[in-house]
Amino acid sequence: MKHLTDIEIAQQNKIKHIKEIATKLGIEEDGIEMFGKYKAKLPLSLIDEEKIKNNNLILVTAITPTPAGEGKTTVSIGLTEGLNKIGNQATVVLREPSLGPVFGIKGGAAGGGYSQVIPMEDINLHFTGDFNAVEKANNLLSALIDNNLQSSCCKLNLDPRTILWKRVMDMNDRSLRNIVIGLGGTANGVPREDGFDITPASEVMAILCMANDFEDLKKRLGDIFIGFTYDKQPIFARDLKAENAMAILLKHAIRPNLVQTLEGNPAIIHGGPFANIAQGTNSIIATKMGLSLSNYVITEAGFGADLGAEKFLNIKCQSAGLSPKAVVLVATIRALRHHGGAKKDQYNTPSLDFVKQGFCNLEKHIENIRKFNIEPVVAINAFSNDSYEEIEFIIEKCEELGVQAVVSEGWAKGGKGTIKLAKAVVKVVESNKSSFKPLYDWNSPVKEKIEKIAKEIYGAAIVDFDKKAKLNLKRIERLGFSDFAICMAKTQKSFSDNEFLVGRPENFTVTVREIEIAAGAKFIIPILGSMMRMPGLPGTPASENMTIDNNGVISGLS
Amino acid sequence: MKHLTDIEIAQQNKIKHIKEIATKLGIEEDGIEMFGKYKAKLPLSLIDEEKIKNNNLILVTAITPTPAGEGKTTVSIGLTEGLNKIGNQATVVLREPSLGPVFGIKGGAAGGGYSQVIPMEDINLHFTGDFNAVEKANNLLSALIDNNLQSSCCKLNLDPRTILWKRVMDMNDRSLRNIVIGLGGTANGVPREDGFDITPASEVMAILCMANDFEDLKKRLGDIFIGFTYDKQPIFARDLKAENAMAILLKHAIRPNLVQTLEGNPAIIHGGPFANIAQGTNSIIATKMGLSLSNYVITEAGFGADLGAEKFLNIKCQSAGLSPKAVVLVATIRALRHHGGAKKDQYNTPSLDFVKQGFCNLEKHIENIRKFNIEPVVAINAFSNDSYEEIEFIIEKCEELGVQAVVSEGWAKGGKGTIKLAKAVVKVVESNKSSFKPLYDWNSPVKEKIEKIAKEIYGAAIVDFDKKAKLNLKRIERLGFSDFAICMAKTQKSFSDNEFLVGRPENFTVTVREIEIAAGAKFIIPILGSMMRMPGLPGTPASENMTIDNNGVISGLS
Repeated sequence: MKHLTDIEIAQQNKIKHIKEIATKLGIEEDGIEMFGKYKAKLPLSLIDEEKIKNNNLILVTAITPTPAGEGKTTVSIGLTEGLNKIGNQATVVLREPSLGPVFGIKGGAAGGGYSQVIPMEDINLHFTGDFNAVEKANNLLSALIDNNLQSSCCKLNLDPRTILWKRVMDMNDRSLRNIVIGLGGTANGVPREDGFDITPASEVMAILCMANDFEDLKKRLGDIFIGFTYDKQPIFARDLKAENAMAILLKHAIRPNLVQTLEGNPAIIHGGPFANIAQGTNSIIATKMGLSLSNYVITEAGFGADLGAEKFLNIKCQSAGLSPKAVVLVATIRALRHHGGAKKDQYNTPSLDFVKQGFCNLEKHIENIRKFNIEPVVAINAFSNDSYEEIEFIIEKCEELGVQAVVSEGWAKGGKGTIKLAKAVVKVVESNKSSFKPLYDWNSPVKEKIEKIAKEIYGAAIVDFDKKAKLNLKRIERLGFSDFAICMAKTQKSFSDNEFLVGRPENFTVTVREIEIAAGAKFIIPILGSMMRMPGLPGTPASENMTIDNNGVISGLS
Repeated sequence: MKHLTDIEIAQQNKIKHIKEIATKLGIEEDGIEMFGKYKAKLPLSLIDEEKIKNNNLILVTAITPTPAGEGKTTVSIGLTEGLNKIGNQATVVLREPSLGPVFGIKGGAAGGGYSQVIPMEDINLHFTGDFNAVEKANNLLSALIDNNLQSSCCKLNLDPRTILWKRVMDMNDRSLRNIVIGLGGTANGVPREDGFDITPASEVMAILCMANDFEDLKKRLGDIFIGFTYDKQPIFARDLKAENAMAILLKHAIRPNLVQTLEGNPAIIHGGPFANIAQGTNSIIATKMGLSLSNYVITEAGFGADLGAEKFLNIKCQSAGLSPKAVVLVATIRALRHHGGAKKDQYNTPSLDFVKQGFCNLEKHIENIRKFNIEPVVAINAFSNDSYEEIEFIIEKCEELGVQAVVSEGWAKGGKGTIKLAKAVVKVVESNKSSFKPLYDWNSPVKEKIEKIAKEIYGAAIVDFDKKAKLNLKRIERLGFSDFAICMAKTQKSFSDNEFLVGRPENFTVTVREIEIAAGAKFIIPILGSMMRMPGLPGTPASENMTIDNNGVISGLS
């Protein structure tokens, strides 16, 4: 049998009109704003705080991932199919994919195999324009900053050397990382260093996903911290009267998007902030929308649980008052082999020894989830080269820890392949064992918050603050930002800040090099390594192998 | 009575569901792709070449404009209301506004007063994402170019100093006009000079609007000329295998957008190329769509008739096989005063003398339209300070030339104010006097084509070619592009290339400084002055006075 690509599976599927999906959620045709026949925006008036409290939020996270990722999105979608199959009303709530990587190596991000959200081409390309709106709002602020430097009549006395706000573009374009702008004489701006990040790295994206409502969005946009005047006074976006115009650009983007899974179940897809320098999960509004409309909401957060789940729980849930009823920890045998010492060319060969050695990684993530007083379920995302004995080993070891581990075959089989997982999740939810408590209080001192995450979640023995980070700490205090959430920026490849320490490293030191501020998002961002904010294209970009025929049918998109 | 702003008029209007507008055009609900309740995309399958031949295309153009513009869009929309009012089935087909200027001085571009297309906020902001798609396609090509310079494995031997392709952003942002990219060491690209133009200046926009269908679009994208190798060989977008990925990004953007006028008549709005370095009119596909669906199509082209109408007729109509049945020449008393010698502070004061002196400008435009064997109608776009004797003078003088001049009050009264104009247009159409013939054949020599436009349309005595332009001419010949259309880039403020020569200048020389190539659009662009491709923001940007309330109601957008 020919192995079908993701786009072939998606295109072969009989897609339902989005009105039918809305009906499943109890929304009438008039209640949605259609974008073609298969996409719609949902009005914020559908959010219902009472229902949010009573329905069940499930977070899908993962062990420390290999570069290919362990399939959180695929498991999230598959689990949603499974939950619906066994009689629950479940909606998957996901991040929107970034356009840039579609033309690079990574490809799109709409699930895979028989666990996808559709129409996958649209979701991966432009979608309903939210990323574009974020990009424009970000770059309008940039234009206003440089216009202020240029104009003599309304100068804020802003020191161009202190400007922290960068432009963004949703493109993998390394040449824009470091640029000099404003060249060409007095009519063409003030020369200064600048750079473009990719759009998901924009603080506007983080803000959109942290906002509770439109009023909160506007307020947060005004709170964006830009830099300092020559006499060291902080300048914010509100000083440029930028927040209303930026909010106008985000008028439609604030509303979550409704699409569907391959099996015709509802999928809400909204927002896509980076998982390193930002929170890496869909918008608070989308999660609340899901919980207002269905009994189960399955959602995910980027990278491993040390980053994704930690931020999801401490930042998003604490800010929005959400309480997950269970956490699904995705593990792959392949990644466990890696954590057990397998080299890249050994990843796909069964080895009980490597898996035994690598189990410690999963074990630490299980322990971490329990620190939030939430019960985990382990989903073993199945690959064709997994051996029976490796799988059985994981299941038994988890059982010893009181955790149910289940093989998830959503990629190969869709909802049929995730019924066991769905049942395990329902069992945890109905056991009422979870009662979420955050790891730290936002009001505790910044250093204490950082140390708590590093020591309790990562397992670090010592947290070092570089000289720059110490200066940054003082600045944060001076600016009155000490009660912000902590948004750690660390490699996803290890619990530590050294990507080569696999498994469960111990007795290590993490070093906070510097600390950034996202004042609109209300984050303090400790930087524990160099963070990529603008990817590049590979030697042979994926774009070269894409085609579109004269009827608009696309191939080569993954 | 309080004078209402454009946005207040638009918001007070009872807007119809877009399904109703589609019904007026004989399209069933299933035949459109809705973008919310008030916008839709139309499938290309609705284009019908037989109907295009039989229905009536009316071009709205203008005399040489003052900086505020003479109201072509407003007259086009008003005329459409009027034509429908007197029992015709008419659709207005317009360009999409650019987002950047909305936050600058200019504001939006969706008509004005009681002649607007709605929802005006959406049309002015993001709309259905077409500009964004053009921007992304343009910038993907840029990223591929720089990625090729970076990567050692697939080098095209492209000489970075020869790269003509620039990045674009739909923002008024002067600081991006001249930049240096690729700084920061070997991992971050190859340093070179670059710059951003505003999105309407992208050749991708020109191509989208020249394309006959999807196949043609793809072909043209591949034909984009990028620069030269170190051994002087031309490099095209197809050499980077870029055209399919670019076309994928334009999959939705190629379809025209349906909205409505204030009086609920159909408006098709699609594409928005610059009027100086590009053709300055909506897409061929949109014009054909309009003609496939209604008896009258009213459309416009940017700047005065020397630029807009000339390009519309020689480039667009010749390429697409379209034959306008009438041309509406918009004049304002204000602009005629200007051409008669009034200073800026005299523009709004009645003066028969100035109007008499300035009439020569209108007269030359009338003569020019007749060179294409098309009958003009003059629309005097009414302003409150027009005097009766000024108006009567114009009407009589036009009558002497055998042209009907009619006062158009669409801004103040909507369709009620344009019934006379509508009747005059119908009379010209039914007289069957127009039988379009282009001014030049694309196959004639480049120099001859340029001279023909400059002498016959502008009234120049001599056409000078600077040294650079002469070298460019040789390059064009060597590359085999001599049979392209001529897309003149000249100031819109004068028939000549000197913006201070108002009225009807004579015995002047125009100087072709250099000649650019848009190989995908199939244009040769003689540059007759410095062309602004990236506007800046004013000292107090419009953004500062915009607000949006918590229900999403916008004010301060004009």
